[in-house]
Amino acid sequence: MKLFYAIIFLILMYSCQKPQHISEEKNVPIFHNSHEPKKQDAPFSDVVQVGNVFYLSGQIGMDHTSRTLVKGGIEAETHQTLKNIQAVLTAHNLAMSDVVKATVILDQIEDFTAFNTIYKTYLPQKPARTTFAAEALARGAKIEIEVIAVRTK
Amino acid sequence: MKLFYAIIFLILMYSCQKPQHISEEKNVPIFHNSHEPKKQDAPFSDVVQVGNVFYLSGQIGMDHTSRTLVKGGIEAETHQTLKNIQAVLTAHNLAMSDVVKATVILDQIEDFTAFNTIYKTYLPQKPARTTFAAEALARGAKIEIEVIAVRTK
Amino acid sequence: MKLFYAIIFLILMYSCQKPQHISEEKNVPIFHNSHEPKKQDAPFSDVVQVGNVFYLSGQIGMDHTSRTLVKGGIEAETHQTLKNIQAVLTAHNLAMSDVVKATVILDQIEDFTAFNTIYKTYLPQKPARTTFAAEALARGAKIEIEVIAVRTK
Repeated sequence: MKLFYAIIFLILMYSCQKPQHISEEKNVPIFHNSHEPKKQDAPFSDVVQVGNVFYLSGQIGMDHTSRTLVKGGIEAETHQTLKNIQAVLTAHNLAMSDVVKATVILDQIEDFTAFNTIYKTYLPQKPARTTFAAEALARGAKIEIEVIAVRTK
Repeated sequence: MKLFYAIIFLILMYSCQKPQHISEEKNVPIFHNSHEPKKQDAPFSDVVQVGNVFYLSGQIGMDHTSRTLVKGGIEAETHQTLKNIQAVLTAHNLAMSDVVKATVILDQIEDFTAFNTIYKTYLPQKPARTTFAAEALARGAKIEIEVIAVRTK
Repeated sequence: MKLFYAIIFLILMYSCQKPQHISEEKNVPIFHNSHEPKKQDAPFSDVVQVGNVFYLSGQIGMDHTSRTLVKGGIEAETHQTLKNIQAVLTAHNLAMSDVVKATVILDQIEDFTAFNTIYKTYLPQKPARTTFAAEALARGAKIEIEVIAVRTK
């Protein structure tokens, strides 16, 4: 009968690992502080983490050290927007290759080709994407990009 | 050999709990009926639940008892929009503090500061956020807000 | 003691199924190739899968065999847009009934009723939905629809 108890013990021990597993599934959200000193008072987080899913706020082509939009039109703003996204991801040990979904909001649909040419070089894995032109963006930006990233390691 | 069968039985019994576990993970979506009597015929659910993630439909500053937009411009509509979101969350035992992501669609980008001042007081945990001005919103609304909420308890 | 080893073997065998289970939870994203031969060079995937969640790219009323927008205005484009979504879902063994969230972007808010009447017939389960009119859509489209679908089987 010793063997019987040993086995019951093993099965119980195995079962005891369950609660931990369940709590992981609960995915308590983490509202990360911005890595940018000048964005601490923003009414949004750069990124909110839910388990291994990271919801990033829309980024525009702003130089966050000076808090001004970069000059140079759609090309310069597209580069800066994507670099801002990259900086947020890097701050959380993620990479552009972890982006699974993008929403691209242009100020003018005529900028589609210009933005698209640059965009492709940053996200060659081809996240699912929706693009449209808004009437206007905050701070007179020409482009805003919002992404969802997924941690896999 | 009785012991052997007893243990096989225990292991099988344990295995039988799996399907339930798997079905939880499978996250069968729940298309919740609206708590608003006058929204039963809407072609969208106020909220669809996928596991512990709640996708809310975009809300505007509509008084759902009269089905008319509240008067008073961007301030009044922002308050009503956020109260409508709060009501949907409350109906599902959630709170504004469970909101992780917001999409804010304005009719005019000039309303940014007005909406932002009010918004901050409802969602101090700072959900990830994207904001832009559309050409137009349904029913002549000045603001529409869509959120994702996560249940943690 | 043979029995003891048999049981240890059974428990180990059972445990060996765990890693696979964990890797499923990690939800390594899958950037699916388009089922449309003419969309292979698009800078976005028709759909990216994260576990049982499928993020679809925004679709417009384009006939993907000719790569031109269907003629016939908002009604024809709404039908084609929803059929394009259906085709992507079908290619991944999913159905319209698996759609949990939709974002509808119109070119003109005046098309709301026309699109809505058709939309209802494709998605009677009532996904959560946000609708607005953009300033412009790519390729002069009158409607773009983005959805999230969830696999339950």
